[in-house]
Amino acid sequence: MALIDNLQWRYATKKYDPTKKVSQHDLDTILEAIRLAPTSSGLQQFRVILISNQELKEKIVPIAGGQEQIADCSHLLVFAAWDGYTKERIEGMYDYITDERALPRGRFAAYTERLKTSYLPQTAEQNFNHTSRQSYIGLGLAMAQAAELKIDSTPMEGFSNAALDELLDLKSKGLRSVTLLPLGYRDTEGDWLVNMKKVRLPKEEFVIEL
Amino acid sequence: MALIDNLQWRYATKKYDPTKKVSQHDLDTILEAIRLAPTSSGLQQFRVILISNQELKEKIVPIAGGQEQIADCSHLLVFAAWDGYTKERIEGMYDYITDERALPRGRFAAYTERLKTSYLPQTAEQNFNHTSRQSYIGLGLAMAQAAELKIDSTPMEGFSNAALDELLDLKSKGLRSVTLLPLGYRDTEGDWLVNMKKVRLPKEEFVIEL
Repeated sequence: MALIDNLQWRYATKKYDPTKKVSQHDLDTILEAIRLAPTSSGLQQFRVILISNQELKEKIVPIAGGQEQIADCSHLLVFAAWDGYTKERIEGMYDYITDERALPRGRFAAYTERLKTSYLPQTAEQNFNHTSRQSYIGLGLAMAQAAELKIDSTPMEGFSNAALDELLDLKSKGLRSVTLLPLGYRDTEGDWLVNMKKVRLPKEEFVIEL
Repeated sequence: MALIDNLQWRYATKKYDPTKKVSQHDLDTILEAIRLAPTSSGLQQFRVILISNQELKEKIVPIAGGQEQIADCSHLLVFAAWDGYTKERIEGMYDYITDERALPRGRFAAYTERLKTSYLPQTAEQNFNHTSRQSYIGLGLAMAQAAELKIDSTPMEGFSNAALDELLDLKSKGLRSVTLLPLGYRDTEGDWLVNMKKVRLPKEEFVIEL
């Protein structure tokens, strides 16, 4: 099916069937779509944390306002972004890029200097605002890829970021949590949203032609 | 082709063939994918501005550090987000949602009260940080949809947001610019990036299993 059809099919699943598990093959495909997501300057400022451990998922439910999808889903993805920019992170990524392309290190030095001049003087919060928004590109592609595989997902922002960062020890990884994405299979009978019309603004209101 | 193949095919196009135009049908499909993008609480906190006027595109080039793709592309999309949350915007969207679902207005009142309690006391900048990141979901889906149609695109953050907001009079629309997305067809000969390897972190580094 085409992307449009997959986007029509998907919805923010409210109830999962806890007995149904996503296969390793499908999970790998979703993770690969996220890995391929473009990011600002190609820095890949975010990581995906994959949680299948039931006990750990259950510990996250109260951190996320009791949203039971986290316990009932097959796998939970946590999108977590760099807690800021550093010289080492920027240069490290570009060393990797030039190595992968068999180019001399420093080939993009003028560009990385510009990045460092822009980002390093900013506050950690300004930088995190920038790194975290990149992860939404990956979040969108994850939902699209899941839908292509007829796997349900539920994008979530409503949780205590600080509590989750502590539980998952994200600080030691230089990361801060941004969003959650349970993956699995809907429990149609228990889901109040599944049969409701998907509502979007009409095109005439959403698109402004200039 | 599957989403993964489309994501492998795409790249941030550096040079467009100015003689090739995206068809209205394909353009409508890309806009529809963006319109279908999920957003936090379903508020659709962003809009897409569609620019095909050559003179206007050329006025944007100097605002975006001289990036000629903006002049040479077929169509330019500007992703622009709500400049903040207001009572009217939140309630207006939920009135629309309930009307579309033939539910009584106020059906989600407890939820919209929570949203207002969260967002309205925040600063405009905090709110814009939240609205703008939603637009990256749409940006990602736009690139995926373009690639499915073998249309090239170039995600851009490097421009003067204030200057573009003024040029497009976004303030009067309650919007602020976030990203640009030229759409069109690559000029393979003039594009330094087209034959370079796409580089992403290896899965073992990008995905953290807990």
